[in-house]
Amino acid sequence: MREVAILGTGITRFREIWDKSFKRLGIEAGLEAIQDSGIQGKNIDALFIGNMASGLFIRQEHIASLVAEEVGLTLNNTPAIRVEGGDAAGGLALAQGFSAVAAGIYDVVVVGGAEKMSDLPGASIVETIASSIDQEWECFFGATQPSLWAMMARRHMHDYGTKREQIAKIAVKNHNNGSLNPKAQFPFKVTLENVLSAPPVCEPLTTLEAAPISDGAAAVVLCSLEKAREYTSEPVVIKGVGLATDSLALHDRMSLTTCKVTSVAAERALNMAGVNIKDIDVAEVHDSFTISELMAMEDLGFVEKGKGGEAVDDGITKLGGDIPINTSGGLKARGNPLGATGIAQAVEIYHQLKGKADSRQVADARFGLTHNMGGSGGTAVIHVMEAV
Amino acid sequence: MREVAILGTGITRFREIWDKSFKRLGIEAGLEAIQDSGIQGKNIDALFIGNMASGLFIRQEHIASLVAEEVGLTLNNTPAIRVEGGDAAGGLALAQGFSAVAAGIYDVVVVGGAEKMSDLPGASIVETIASSIDQEWECFFGATQPSLWAMMARRHMHDYGTKREQIAKIAVKNHNNGSLNPKAQFPFKVTLENVLSAPPVCEPLTTLEAAPISDGAAAVVLCSLEKAREYTSEPVVIKGVGLATDSLALHDRMSLTTCKVTSVAAERALNMAGVNIKDIDVAEVHDSFTISELMAMEDLGFVEKGKGGEAVDDGITKLGGDIPINTSGGLKARGNPLGATGIAQAVEIYHQLKGKADSRQVADARFGLTHNMGGSGGTAVIHVMEAV
Repeated sequence: MREVAILGTGITRFREIWDKSFKRLGIEAGLEAIQDSGIQGKNIDALFIGNMASGLFIRQEHIASLVAEEVGLTLNNTPAIRVEGGDAAGGLALAQGFSAVAAGIYDVVVVGGAEKMSDLPGASIVETIASSIDQEWECFFGATQPSLWAMMARRHMHDYGTKREQIAKIAVKNHNNGSLNPKAQFPFKVTLENVLSAPPVCEPLTTLEAAPISDGAAAVVLCSLEKAREYTSEPVVIKGVGLATDSLALHDRMSLTTCKVTSVAAERALNMAGVNIKDIDVAEVHDSFTISELMAMEDLGFVEKGKGGEAVDDGITKLGGDIPINTSGGLKARGNPLGATGIAQAVEIYHQLKGKADSRQVADARFGLTHNMGGSGGTAVIHVMEAV
Repeated sequence: MREVAILGTGITRFREIWDKSFKRLGIEAGLEAIQDSGIQGKNIDALFIGNMASGLFIRQEHIASLVAEEVGLTLNNTPAIRVEGGDAAGGLALAQGFSAVAAGIYDVVVVGGAEKMSDLPGASIVETIASSIDQEWECFFGATQPSLWAMMARRHMHDYGTKREQIAKIAVKNHNNGSLNPKAQFPFKVTLENVLSAPPVCEPLTTLEAAPISDGAAAVVLCSLEKAREYTSEPVVIKGVGLATDSLALHDRMSLTTCKVTSVAAERALNMAGVNIKDIDVAEVHDSFTISELMAMEDLGFVEKGKGGEAVDDGITKLGGDIPINTSGGLKARGNPLGATGIAQAVEIYHQLKGKADSRQVADARFGLTHNMGGSGGTAVIHVMEAV
């Protein structure tokens, strides 16, 4: 297999975008990535699109060809493939693009992620988000994503003495990071008091602890490392990829306080990269809720199981801490257009490893990690990247 | 890249299935394929699922993990990835599974296709099928898939003098083939008179010229040729894969009588296989409508453009003809559960190349081809297979 590099990236600002269509968002991010990479459009061999639920959100399937047309790729009848796995769709698409380049099937591919969530009424949006958890055994009985994560939070507090404030502080950190990111949906700071006193989305979690409803798109251009060296002297390489699945339904898993997909996918990606978790300098993790980030810190191995709360108090995941997490603002503050999220994470790590993250730059970042998850933990995708 | 073989197949009967869920269909086809291959479940490295619209049909996304759980693959947290591209989803999933094995990323993968269409009311089914054509520029103005294909039929008749009866005879042939296939949705024969006098679905096409609404699933097990030789002395190898896209909207294309995706994807697949179209002994093509098969005969290069009607009269695509097409009954008679169709085509070609197609066996079949298409021609996927 060949080594695979990220050659360029593009991302729209994430927010509720009423004046642009799904297609328009895809074009914006895609063309920005192509321009950033310096590659010619005619040299693109394939397009992979991560998208969770365009059918339910905008009644349009077959969206990879649609986006391919809009960016001019159908002129060469360039292959276009949509990949889905709940809100891990973006990460899965990146993994598929990686495989195709690593195998030598394609030389240059664009991997995009996009979601247009805000065109539906609110209740339908919640129902559609819940299509990534088990319809038959969870949704039918009234469960939604927030209610499942709230249960996980309660159990974590019960089993490990994790404090309410420790969980909430994650939102404070991520909003602080988001305030430094011009592409963030919510580029403002919040206080611990703001978070704790916000209306509950599902107790104990408040609305300021849940990722928002977002429209947006992000894209990366991938090529072989060899080709990348023609364009840049400092390529960012994808060193490891790890995928894992578990049951969609939370009640079918062994634990409420661990997402096994995260630990297994991390092990696979780190092994492939030949890197230890302690080597990671910066990470974007799937904080669909504050508790999701806390559990991911533990499941990834940054801290021991049960020690996430303490680690938050110690500030190790803040900018300037031992292992800055979600410097982009994370799903919480940058926003979470489901299928776009996994690609947005890669865009942030790329900028960090290139030293282009401006006021949120992590000093001397060499290894970065992205952690993208579907549903309440039915899928996880981990990528380990290195500035070489 | 390694050579990739099909080691085993499974398929449910296609029909409107009221007593089995999406999951149950996936399990049936998947377990049959695993059993047929002789492989142990624990040796499966990944699952790829082709599905077009589970969100709209059953309000469940993230279905690859769901199916993975049901067949026991989440015990090892085996990666599971859904692939979509309209009704070409199955073919695209097969192409992704092929890439992963060819690259050496995985050794053994299961590729399944599944769709549960009948749980919605009729009008919603038609609307959902139309989510593979352009919502904004086609559906919004009243177009559906049948109306687009009817236009293509009219234009073909106008440009090339193709006769109404020639187009209709394709349904007669496919139902004849389907009557020999115990897994077919409509295993009965029809006469030319039946086809022509059936109620119009969209003039000139009648209901007996349109693929039905179907529930069903199909699966194949892929592995490296080297590994396949441990299990069988007569492996079936995927020699060529070709993907192509075009605009979703018909009016954005240069011609109403050619699906360029088909000719381009075929060229790519045949080049990769090092095979001429004249070498193909048996083919499954995407006859979502009778006219689709007629155009595919021409676009694939089995006959010259405009000569499809004559070729039907000559019977070259019948069992016993020069190039038997849709021996399974095709989408028309075997059925068309959208995401399952591309895999069902591979199942039929596998049986033909293994000499296991019973009363519909094509004598001495060595090379086979599958042609799976999305929408009115937004995507095409071609696989060329060989019995080695």
